[in-house]
Amino acid sequence: MADAAPSTARVEEEPKPDSKTLQILRDMANRLRIHAIRATCALSSSHPASSSSAAEIMAVLFFHTMRYKREDPNNQDNDRFVHSKRLPFVDVATRWFGQGLGAACGMAYTGKYFDKASYRVYCLLGDAESSQGYVWEALAFASHYSLDNLVAIFDVNRLGHSGALPPEHCIDVYQKRCEAFGWNTYVVDGRDVEALCQVFWRANQVKNKPTAIVAKTFKGRGIPSVEDTESWHGKPMPKERIDAIIKLIESQIETNRSLDPKPPIEDSPLISILGIEMISPPAYAVGEKVATRKACGLALAKLGHANDRVIVLDGDTKNSTFSDIFKKEHPERFIECFIAEQNMVSVALGCATHDRTVAFVSTFAAFLTRAFDQIRMGAISQSSINLIGSHCGVSAGEDGPSQMALEDLAMFRAIPNCTVFYPSDAISTEHAVFLAANTKVIRHSVDDKVTVIGAGVTLHEALAAAEDLSKQGQLVVGENGSLGWAEVGLIFIHKPGYCCFPDIFIRVIDLFTIKPLDIVTIISSAKATGGHIITVEDHCPEGGIGEAVAAAVSMDPDISVHQLAVRGIPRSGMSSELLDLFGVSARHIIMAVKCMLMN
Amino acid sequence: MADAAPSTARVEEEPKPDSKTLQILRDMANRLRIHAIRATCALSSSHPASSSSAAEIMAVLFFHTMRYKREDPNNQDNDRFVHSKRLPFVDVATRWFGQGLGAACGMAYTGKYFDKASYRVYCLLGDAESSQGYVWEALAFASHYSLDNLVAIFDVNRLGHSGALPPEHCIDVYQKRCEAFGWNTYVVDGRDVEALCQVFWRANQVKNKPTAIVAKTFKGRGIPSVEDTESWHGKPMPKERIDAIIKLIESQIETNRSLDPKPPIEDSPLISILGIEMISPPAYAVGEKVATRKACGLALAKLGHANDRVIVLDGDTKNSTFSDIFKKEHPERFIECFIAEQNMVSVALGCATHDRTVAFVSTFAAFLTRAFDQIRMGAISQSSINLIGSHCGVSAGEDGPSQMALEDLAMFRAIPNCTVFYPSDAISTEHAVFLAANTKVIRHSVDDKVTVIGAGVTLHEALAAAEDLSKQGQLVVGENGSLGWAEVGLIFIHKPGYCCFPDIFIRVIDLFTIKPLDIVTIISSAKATGGHIITVEDHCPEGGIGEAVAAAVSMDPDISVHQLAVRGIPRSGMSSELLDLFGVSARHIIMAVKCMLMN
Repeated sequence: MADAAPSTARVEEEPKPDSKTLQILRDMANRLRIHAIRATCALSSSHPASSSSAAEIMAVLFFHTMRYKREDPNNQDNDRFVHSKRLPFVDVATRWFGQGLGAACGMAYTGKYFDKASYRVYCLLGDAESSQGYVWEALAFASHYSLDNLVAIFDVNRLGHSGALPPEHCIDVYQKRCEAFGWNTYVVDGRDVEALCQVFWRANQVKNKPTAIVAKTFKGRGIPSVEDTESWHGKPMPKERIDAIIKLIESQIETNRSLDPKPPIEDSPLISILGIEMISPPAYAVGEKVATRKACGLALAKLGHANDRVIVLDGDTKNSTFSDIFKKEHPERFIECFIAEQNMVSVALGCATHDRTVAFVSTFAAFLTRAFDQIRMGAISQSSINLIGSHCGVSAGEDGPSQMALEDLAMFRAIPNCTVFYPSDAISTEHAVFLAANTKVIRHSVDDKVTVIGAGVTLHEALAAAEDLSKQGQLVVGENGSLGWAEVGLIFIHKPGYCCFPDIFIRVIDLFTIKPLDIVTIISSAKATGGHIITVEDHCPEGGIGEAVAAAVSMDPDISVHQLAVRGIPRSGMSSELLDLFGVSARHIIMAVKCMLMN
Repeated sequence: MADAAPSTARVEEEPKPDSKTLQILRDMANRLRIHAIRATCALSSSHPASSSSAAEIMAVLFFHTMRYKREDPNNQDNDRFVHSKRLPFVDVATRWFGQGLGAACGMAYTGKYFDKASYRVYCLLGDAESSQGYVWEALAFASHYSLDNLVAIFDVNRLGHSGALPPEHCIDVYQKRCEAFGWNTYVVDGRDVEALCQVFWRANQVKNKPTAIVAKTFKGRGIPSVEDTESWHGKPMPKERIDAIIKLIESQIETNRSLDPKPPIEDSPLISILGIEMISPPAYAVGEKVATRKACGLALAKLGHANDRVIVLDGDTKNSTFSDIFKKEHPERFIECFIAEQNMVSVALGCATHDRTVAFVSTFAAFLTRAFDQIRMGAISQSSINLIGSHCGVSAGEDGPSQMALEDLAMFRAIPNCTVFYPSDAISTEHAVFLAANTKVIRHSVDDKVTVIGAGVTLHEALAAAEDLSKQGQLVVGENGSLGWAEVGLIFIHKPGYCCFPDIFIRVIDLFTIKPLDIVTIISSAKATGGHIITVEDHCPEGGIGEAVAAAVSMDPDISVHQLAVRGIPRSGMSSELLDLFGVSARHIIMAVKCMLMN
């Protein structure tokens, strides 16, 4: 954990807004309410009732409490607002829908420990979403890291999507839970703008604890026969009632004035995360045995020297994934998130906003399945984070199936605009970490009869199969001093090498980038090898490499694809035994090659 | 929510076990410790240190507190033990690794509300896993439903996988949090067998609240220089130290006696969940417009009449998914889980153990991504539950991309031993609910030139395309009075109809079962239509229908597959507009057919 920002407390007199200011805030809340009703009516969708409950909170936050430049919403010094519930009158950040508090934690952590700046982070949550466990992961994270620049507002309007929520309006339930999770907690009437001004001010004075504001509110507030009534969730107001409703709300507006927000304190450092380059080429010696996960830890540490905004987040697996190498060299940029992967991904998304950091999330690939929705929502919001999953496939071995990632390729391939790397050795791992995305042909000759496509551990099985098929094949060292084959754990130099095989020649492709797929290389290799492709992957077939390749060549009648993949439920065992038992070892590749050439 | 069991409190005298019994319990704990050290040494893997911290808890539970038939571990009346942390000396239920409390909630709910029986449920958790949000979802669930037959034991040994956990040994942190979540909570020294006997007895007397027992323990207890020391997680003891360690532990064993468990109270009802049949055929009239999700709600309600062990779990979406139809007809078998999908899936897994219920989980398909790991672990443990996801694809429309399931096919296809249904109308939905798994050819003639494979909403686009391509095609009603085409929202009768097309004839297949794929039908249809297949899906291409089909025919040079699928990040809009914008509408199918036939 990094050192906190020096105490830059903004000591202020307790603001006692005059009655005029308070009336303006009330009026602005009612204008927001009208805006929500109009917008959702035009859209025939969305959530005017939920918006109404939070109108006073939003008015006070945006026109009294928060510091920001209205004309520059992306300014690095602005206070941040994270919007976790659905409100139709906020243009920004609906992207955090239901997962906002974790992202807010990431922003607050960045503000306090990386930027050491004065900006504060406000997150508005609905009471329904607080039944999600990841909200409590975020609460535990924020208090553990003393994020006193973070304020979470619980908009407790009692009603969920399909009915009343268990705590109803017993706001002491929320209060006790927040306090038990280490938060400074205030209870407030969410309709009272004066009380809201006061609690936000008090939150600003608190040191070493995040503040939760539990606001008792009413869904559909201000709308007769809708306020505090079930079954209005996600529904626009009936068109025939709009005019009367708006007239009623307008009758409560007394002024037509607005308020200017306070300007931000401009103390965030100027930084850049662009153009990060490898400071030196990979420095592995030929023959050196390095596990890819260790190479990954080393590469992350090296990347950390190339740019001081590179951060790593861990889910209590640092000693297995070797992210502890990064921690040792850059302790101030390492965030331990404990085993709470959903929150870890959300925190990373928060850290990466405003381009303040380059965030790498690291854990076992199987555990990333827990954060599928966070990853999916991150992609939808076009955020840029990096996820590293170790221990994929049955080759994870003795730890058993709960730790084996077989579904992660399907999961990540389904994420739009995402690049999936699958490095096979230390050097390709380092390149992957530095975001070098190439598909490389590893082993080829003009007489190749079959193209075998592997990735990760199966690349080495494919190369072993090629070696075995060659029988007395003579190894020729390629132009750049590189070797033409590799074993699991051996360093492999990614330059083409050449072999003479008296028996069967096969071409081996290291896919490296699973997504996007290098279709040109795959098709040209297939054409050069009689249209024969064998894919071999230490993953389940569904959504994996074989399907990706089969789909890519599916319009070409001259290319056929045979898939070797893990089928059924694996068990615990030795890596090499499991690879063979589940049909993805060198022996199975050899059989598949012979079978394909016979037919 | 169902009525609770009548008060069948087992009033007992507070047990004051004599000193002999206590010594036997201590000795059994030490024998468990030795067993853990030996087993993990033989395996060269797993967790002797974590096992050691819980040895006394396990000895007291299994040989003093729990009621069960030792010779019949699956007896329906036995107390249940759910094992959420990793211990090498328990053969059963390591399958719940880290996700046990939700499953325990499902068992306790079943015991209290469905079986109305006396068996109790005990769940042992590690302190590391309590940083997972889904643990707090389960805590909220158990107190909301007053599961006083449930006891959770937190084995607080201070150390996680890669280091100390934030609360360290401050067990009052756990106590406050459990109390805030509505649990009756006791703190105990986890090494003290007498104290453990007492708290388990006290837990048994408590009404209307679940009980949490926060036990302060020590990782590696009893093993010199391992006890309470970091970096021993998941490591067997060094072979050269085994003999000395075991000798030391043996020196503390004073007896060689064992204890017999108390017998269970045999009051669970005899039930059967086998052979559930549809009580009447689907009763939809031709031309009747029914949304598939409404048909699903109706089918669930009907299924509920066929067997009184059918239950439905909802994640606060019942009014959108129409599972509220089931709730209305079978309120006592409907479990509202609120928006906490991870816990909902775990609860369903727990309800389904011992074949006590047939559990259906229902929510938006996009939200099931949150429970990917629970679904994956359920499959690994070979549990049988049913998951219903609504609102898939861009056709979900105005609600926007956060609610659109585009990745769910990839996710579920990657789950081993899982069947994926994709019904296209009310009747096929009812059949899917009754687990009828057939792939049906919807529309065909001998002159078909292209096979178009659709599912769900795209089936109707495919049929519209077929209709349009036929131009002046004459509709012929098939033998069974069925119609040969359909529109979105229309009921479609699943019997082949015949049309004469003067222009282009295409064959339409309703895939219905995405997994397993009916490869025979697909290949025979493709062969009959010149090897031309077009797949069209309202999902992302990765891991979806197109890839599945391409992979299935990838060894056949005469078949080519063209895929229409949703690419990129969708947005909010009208369903029909989005289908067209993302290239999966009838218009795009027509273009693809013409393009394929021209090449």
